[in-house]
Amino acid sequence: MNTIDVAVIDRVLSAIQQNCPLIHNITNLVAMNASANVLLAMGASPLMAHAPEELEDIVRLSHALVLNIGTLDQAWLQSMQQAQKIALEAGKPIVLDPVGAGASPYRTQASKTLLQTGVSVVRGNAAEIMALCDQAVASKGVDSSYASDAAIIAAQHLSLQYNCCVVVSGVSDYVISVNGHYQVTGGDALLTQVTGMGCSTTAMIAACCAVEADTAIAAVTAMTCMASAAEQARLIATGPGSFYPALLDAIATRVMTPTHV
Amino acid sequence: MNTIDVAVIDRVLSAIQQNCPLIHNITNLVAMNASANVLLAMGASPLMAHAPEELEDIVRLSHALVLNIGTLDQAWLQSMQQAQKIALEAGKPIVLDPVGAGASPYRTQASKTLLQTGVSVVRGNAAEIMALCDQAVASKGVDSSYASDAAIIAAQHLSLQYNCCVVVSGVSDYVISVNGHYQVTGGDALLTQVTGMGCSTTAMIAACCAVEADTAIAAVTAMTCMASAAEQARLIATGPGSFYPALLDAIATRVMTPTHV
Amino acid sequence: MNTIDVAVIDRVLSAIQQNCPLIHNITNLVAMNASANVLLAMGASPLMAHAPEELEDIVRLSHALVLNIGTLDQAWLQSMQQAQKIALEAGKPIVLDPVGAGASPYRTQASKTLLQTGVSVVRGNAAEIMALCDQAVASKGVDSSYASDAAIIAAQHLSLQYNCCVVVSGVSDYVISVNGHYQVTGGDALLTQVTGMGCSTTAMIAACCAVEADTAIAAVTAMTCMASAAEQARLIATGPGSFYPALLDAIATRVMTPTHV
Repeated sequence: MNTIDVAVIDRVLSAIQQNCPLIHNITNLVAMNASANVLLAMGASPLMAHAPEELEDIVRLSHALVLNIGTLDQAWLQSMQQAQKIALEAGKPIVLDPVGAGASPYRTQASKTLLQTGVSVVRGNAAEIMALCDQAVASKGVDSSYASDAAIIAAQHLSLQYNCCVVVSGVSDYVISVNGHYQVTGGDALLTQVTGMGCSTTAMIAACCAVEADTAIAAVTAMTCMASAAEQARLIATGPGSFYPALLDAIATRVMTPTHV
Repeated sequence: MNTIDVAVIDRVLSAIQQNCPLIHNITNLVAMNASANVLLAMGASPLMAHAPEELEDIVRLSHALVLNIGTLDQAWLQSMQQAQKIALEAGKPIVLDPVGAGASPYRTQASKTLLQTGVSVVRGNAAEIMALCDQAVASKGVDSSYASDAAIIAAQHLSLQYNCCVVVSGVSDYVISVNGHYQVTGGDALLTQVTGMGCSTTAMIAACCAVEADTAIAAVTAMTCMASAAEQARLIATGPGSFYPALLDAIATRVMTPTHV
Repeated sequence: MNTIDVAVIDRVLSAIQQNCPLIHNITNLVAMNASANVLLAMGASPLMAHAPEELEDIVRLSHALVLNIGTLDQAWLQSMQQAQKIALEAGKPIVLDPVGAGASPYRTQASKTLLQTGVSVVRGNAAEIMALCDQAVASKGVDSSYASDAAIIAAQHLSLQYNCCVVVSGVSDYVISVNGHYQVTGGDALLTQVTGMGCSTTAMIAACCAVEADTAIAAVTAMTCMASAAEQARLIATGPGSFYPALLDAIATRVMTPTHV
C-alpha cells in the first residue's frame, strides 16, 4: 500500500473551500438531501438536474459529475448516459456509485454500462464492486455483506480493465488505481446506520476530483475526510440521529486527524 | 381490547436486530429519507426501488414490501401494483400507507385498488381509514382532522372485508385484526410536527411483519416502539427539529417503556 | 424603503398557527423534506402532489400553491402549469421559486413562462431574479454570485411588468411590490450551508400568503421569520448540521426579534 501525506489531503480540501466547485449530481431520491448537505459542508456547491433539455448546459457549467443508480429507472438512466457522454467530451471528472449492483441484474447491467462507457472513479461496497467484476455474488440488497478487503482483487481488475480509480468502502476503505493502492482506516460504524452516507462519500469524491487531477489522491482525500469527520461526530453522538448533524458540523469545521492514511 | 405482553414486543424487535430484514419501499418522495433512517435505526435494511425492470428481483430478495401513495403518479402506481402482485405470489408481507386518501378521488381510488388486491396491513390516520370505507369524509389534506377512535368501526369493517390488519394512528393508536383489537397509547404530539413520521411508522410495521407472522403483533410492536421512542425523544427535544434526531437515537437504543399496551 | 410593524408580522404568523393552512407544493426532490418540516414548524400543513389526475382536487383543497423548478423536467413542468392554471381560476396565491434560472436556458425559460402566466410572489437570489429580467447574468449554478442589492432594479422591473411581489434573497433581503419596498436584514450565513433553505423560505411565503392578502406583508413576514429563527439557531449551532434542527425549533417556538424590518 502507498501513503499520501496529510498535507496533500489538506491542500485538496482547502482548494474546494477556495474554489467552491459546482458538482452536478444525478443521484437517487433517498440520498439527494444528504449529498447536497455534505457537499455544502465541505465548501462545494451541489446541483441536482436530470432533464435532458438542460444536461448539455449543466454538465458544461459543472466541475464534476456524480452518477448514482440508487433509485434507477429508464428515464433517469437515459439522463445519466446523456450527461456522461457530454462530461466525457468536455473532460469533466465522472464518479459512479453503483448502489445495489448485484441486487438485481438491472442494477448490475446499468452499472456495467456506465462503467464501460468511462468514469474517473467508481465507489461501492465490496458486494457492489465484486458484482461489477463478474464474480459470483449473493448481494443482500444495497448493504454489503462482505468485508471490504474481499473485493481488493476485483477492484484491481476493474481498475486496469476500465482505466479508472476503484474505491471499496468498508471498515477499511481501499483506493485502487494505476497510480497506487491506498488503505484508509478509521471512521465509525454509525456511518452505516444513517442512510445516504455512502452516496454522500461518492459526492465528496467528485468534489475532490473537481480540484485534483489525480483521482487516487482525490478519492483518498474524500475517504479520509469522511472517516475523520465520523470519528469527531462519534464523540458527541448518542445514536444515528444525533450522529448525522454532528458529522456535517465536523466536515464543515474540518478537524482532520492525520492518522488515517 | 386485547393485550400483548411486553416480552413479545421485545422478541419481535430483537428478531429484527438479529436478522436485519430487507424492506422494499415504494414510497413517497418526501418520506423516503426518514423511512430509511428509521428502518436503519431499528436494525432493518431499507431498499427503495421502483423500476419495472427490477421489481421481480427486488421483491423476491426482500422480506417485506411497503406501498405508500404520498406522492403518487401513474408510473409509480403501476410499479406498486406490479410489486404487489409479485409479493402476493411470493408470500411476502405487504403494508399499505394510503397517504391523503379522501383528499382526492385519485388517492382514494388508488388506495382502494391496492387494498382490494391484497395487503397484510394498512395504516392511516382516522380520515384516511374512513375514506377507504366509503364513509363520508371531509379530509383536510394528508393530516387527519378526526380523532383516531372515530375510525374504529371503519377499521373493523375494512379488516373483515379485506382480511387484513388495520391500524388507525392518532393520539391513541388502534390495531384491528381478526386476531384481536389493541390500543397503543403514549407517544408525543411532536410526531405530528415532523414530516414523514407516519410513513416511517408504516415502514416499521413492515420490518416487524418481516419477522413476525401475526400481523397484529407486528403492528402493535411497531406502534409501541414509535410511541416509546417519541416519549424518550421528548425528554431532550426543544422542538420538532431536535425531536427527530433524538427519536432516531431512541429507536436505535430501544429503551422500551412497558406501559403502552 | 417602507417599514412594517412587528405587530403585523406577529398577526400573520399567529393566523397561520390558528388556521393551519394547507400548502400545496410542486417542488424539487432535494428540498421537499425541508420544506415540509419548515411548514409544519410554523403551523401550516404541507402537501406534495404532482399527478395530473388529482391536481384539480388538490389545488382547490389547498390555500396556496408553491411552484419550485429545482429539479425540473417536462412532466413536472406540465404539472406545474396545470396546477397554476387551476390556482389562477380559483384565486389561490401562487409563489414561484425559479431555482437555477440563468444556469440553463431551460430553467430560465420555464421560470419566465410560469412568471408570465401569473404568480403572486416570485422569490430568488440576485442571479435568478436578474436572469428573469433579461439582464446578462453569468450564473454559477443554483447559488447566487451576486449581492442581493444588485437585483433591486431587476426586481422593480419584474414587479411592474408582471404585477407581482418580487423577493430577492441575500445577506439583506428585498421585498419589492407596488404596495411598497421593504428590506429585511439579519439572518445568518449558515442558511447558505444547508440545502433547501431558500426553497423552504419560499414555502413559508406561501403559508403567509394563505392568510394575508397583501403579498408584500406576507413576504416580509416570511423573510423576517426565517431571519429571526436563523439568528436564534446560530446561538446554539456548532455548524450547518446542528443549525438545521435548531432552526426548526426556533421557527416552532417563534421567538421573534423585532429589529429586522
